[in-house]
Amino acid sequence: MTDSWATFGADLHLDLSAGRGLRAGLTEALREAARSGRLAAGTRLPSSRSLAADLGIARNTVAEAYAELVAEGWLTARQGSGTRVAERARPRRSAAATAVRVRRPARGRPAYNLQPGSPDLSAFPRAAWLTAARRALTDAPNEAFGYALDPRGRIELREALAGYLARARGVYADPERIVLCAGFVHGLTLLAGMLRARRVREVAVEGYGLDIHRDLLAKAGLRTRPLGVDEEGARTGELGAGAGAVLLTPAHQFPTGVALTPARRAAAVDWARTTGGLILEDDYDGEFRYDRQPVGALQGLDPDRVVYLGTASKSLAPGLRMGWMVVPPGLVEEVLAVKGLTDWTSSALDQLTLAEFIRSGAYDRHVRGMRLRYRRRRDELLAAVAGRVGVSGIAAGLHAVLDLPEGATERSVIQSAAWQDLALGGLSRHRHPEADLPPRAAVVVGYGTPSDSAWTPALAALSAVLP
Amino acid sequence: MTDSWATFGADLHLDLSAGRGLRAGLTEALREAARSGRLAAGTRLPSSRSLAADLGIARNTVAEAYAELVAEGWLTARQGSGTRVAERARPRRSAAATAVRVRRPARGRPAYNLQPGSPDLSAFPRAAWLTAARRALTDAPNEAFGYALDPRGRIELREALAGYLARARGVYADPERIVLCAGFVHGLTLLAGMLRARRVREVAVEGYGLDIHRDLLAKAGLRTRPLGVDEEGARTGELGAGAGAVLLTPAHQFPTGVALTPARRAAAVDWARTTGGLILEDDYDGEFRYDRQPVGALQGLDPDRVVYLGTASKSLAPGLRMGWMVVPPGLVEEVLAVKGLTDWTSSALDQLTLAEFIRSGAYDRHVRGMRLRYRRRRDELLAAVAGRVGVSGIAAGLHAVLDLPEGATERSVIQSAAWQDLALGGLSRHRHPEADLPPRAAVVVGYGTPSDSAWTPALAALSAVLP
Repeated sequence: MTDSWATFGADLHLDLSAGRGLRAGLTEALREAARSGRLAAGTRLPSSRSLAADLGIARNTVAEAYAELVAEGWLTARQGSGTRVAERARPRRSAAATAVRVRRPARGRPAYNLQPGSPDLSAFPRAAWLTAARRALTDAPNEAFGYALDPRGRIELREALAGYLARARGVYADPERIVLCAGFVHGLTLLAGMLRARRVREVAVEGYGLDIHRDLLAKAGLRTRPLGVDEEGARTGELGAGAGAVLLTPAHQFPTGVALTPARRAAAVDWARTTGGLILEDDYDGEFRYDRQPVGALQGLDPDRVVYLGTASKSLAPGLRMGWMVVPPGLVEEVLAVKGLTDWTSSALDQLTLAEFIRSGAYDRHVRGMRLRYRRRRDELLAAVAGRVGVSGIAAGLHAVLDLPEGATERSVIQSAAWQDLALGGLSRHRHPEADLPPRAAVVVGYGTPSDSAWTPALAALSAVLP
Repeated sequence: MTDSWATFGADLHLDLSAGRGLRAGLTEALREAARSGRLAAGTRLPSSRSLAADLGIARNTVAEAYAELVAEGWLTARQGSGTRVAERARPRRSAAATAVRVRRPARGRPAYNLQPGSPDLSAFPRAAWLTAARRALTDAPNEAFGYALDPRGRIELREALAGYLARARGVYADPERIVLCAGFVHGLTLLAGMLRARRVREVAVEGYGLDIHRDLLAKAGLRTRPLGVDEEGARTGELGAGAGAVLLTPAHQFPTGVALTPARRAAAVDWARTTGGLILEDDYDGEFRYDRQPVGALQGLDPDRVVYLGTASKSLAPGLRMGWMVVPPGLVEEVLAVKGLTDWTSSALDQLTLAEFIRSGAYDRHVRGMRLRYRRRRDELLAAVAGRVGVSGIAAGLHAVLDLPEGATERSVIQSAAWQDLALGGLSRHRHPEADLPPRAAVVVGYGTPSDSAWTPALAALSAVLP
């Protein structure tokens, strides 16, 4: 049996064998730590003075133990760099350690990526974000560092969002009814739980949409029934009494890119009022609109029947994991019952930083700048493919749909793109398996994804692979 | 039917009635936005030049509409502060808005708080954290701002933690087997899901522990069976074949404060090896130890049978929502299957900041500083209550247990504390309802909770209410 000692000053944990001399015990404990790989090669040990003080023993004892291990080759000592675990110490690995294999969604990265779903990550406003973080950290009350007291999230961010969403997206947004979440998937997971708790069994979805959203609903026990999608958006007139909710992308249908027409919006709201159903509005790229067109949030038509969902994933960066829901009055408690009172998921400091970022006007400035950048790319895309393919979905957002000419298949175009080291996505993978939609061969081009420097060659590669 | 226009430059969304003059339409849309409360009082409108440019109309048209609404009292215009929505505009609230009521865990805050579970929030190292955030933001690769590619979390943080946990806590920590999470509750939720997927039905827990952890396990479909707790920690010899896992706090039992003895540790590991059971090690305040004593992580005894869980909630701040698990090799994929490939929950920037904070030595410095501060408070607590109550659990952590003398009840002491505006917690509320434990009247004093300035009066209030 070994006794276990902790040396708190230096935060170096050592197992000192009982019944041995101090020096021998210390030497063996250090040797074992290095040999077993617990202390990785290169780890700097505390100074002999500091370790001796922490262990309450003579400094010489520590120095002698160190010297012995240097002589044995377990440690190295160099002027100015202190005593470190030597490189030769082979790390011990537990039996199955090498067998750990984690599936990663991305294989090798292609040189160029025009798949939809990501903004230009190189444009993240690092300096402005840091400025906001500095102010947020300086101004934060102490309680902000503690366990969250409000399961909806920090009031500062809910207030900033309420102002912004009302002004920029036409949302009726009371801070009391905003619930923060860690992105759209988290928000939809909470809503799916809430719908299940209400005994809803079926959710209508758009016939074209993201499979991860459909899968998430299915995993929560909700059957998804596809609506048709045409040039006016989802065919909301098809909504029946069977569905308890409908998930829509009114501002810019994903992936076809059309805006839901006023008539279709009215039909959705009528359905909700008549049947008591709920509309889940995914306003995923509502900020990016390039032409003057009707695009207010659907939520503005009936805040009592629409849950509005937005995120910073397209406008800033997915890595922030910041999302928000504007929930009808009667449903706030039900959503929070699913969210739970104990698991808040996103850092208070990030919430305060985003609040400051919005309040200071930096969010608007960033969105405006990105809008110009994306619009320019869209125009360049249009110019590059004009006359060769049909282009749609271009009034807004970060992607467009290119309909391929007769004879060309999605698969062949995506395959030749892969040969050019260009990642490209097809339209058909977004089809609901049960959707009743006419056949359509098209690729979905995410022109927001590349950095500025990668954009021009990516566009050239695309141009080369189109039939 | 109204047409809806969005003005993208200024990000002000307006509904312009069709079939009217431009100026009349604009005036009405602005009046409606202010009247309905969508634009809150005080909201600053874009300049007439900017709005005109965005709408593609003459600046005069906008200026006239603004002037008309100022005359009507809906807007105010002041030199240097621009045009804003006037205060008199009453916000429209949807019918049930005033009925939103959110249960908050905290009622009014007491003047002094000696309940356990929180570190001193006033000591959060704001400047050092900001320094780390600045470096992390500067050094971050662009992909860090995107959707996470590894469901375990950023490799930078997993590597920093592996080094720290090996050095300071005696953990065998391979970055490949570290899974980041948003705090202990999130981690335990993931493990509960993993255990359920393995068809485990019962988890042994300590007879004294946190009810939110027991409730979480129960909600996941796991029955909890209590172990006895005495002066050597949890009675791990009571572990039987029925439980598939055991949740332990070996470094500093919560709430009794004792360290699990070597014999009890060995018994737990023997049980795990014999039955194939799993040990979940909650190392919740492992960094804070004041006396030289055996306190390495239990995980060091058998990394193949122990899941180690740690967080930054006690060492830094709960508001960061940062936790980590060191998972046995064979279980990483099973844990990730529950975590999901799409919901990463914590911000990449926070992960990179914490990695930098650890790497730079700021984490060690902060922990050492806090250890001195908490030890001083512990000593002051001991001095203040000496001879009046039995004190235990004082070798480590942020709380101590005060056993009340014959005749005094928890309830009476907590009640008189409340009269002094002092929040105090009893021991009995942490008892598992089925635990076979001797009766014990005691209060659990969290001496880490107050700020430095509140500590002295809090201690005086405590002293006044003890029998």
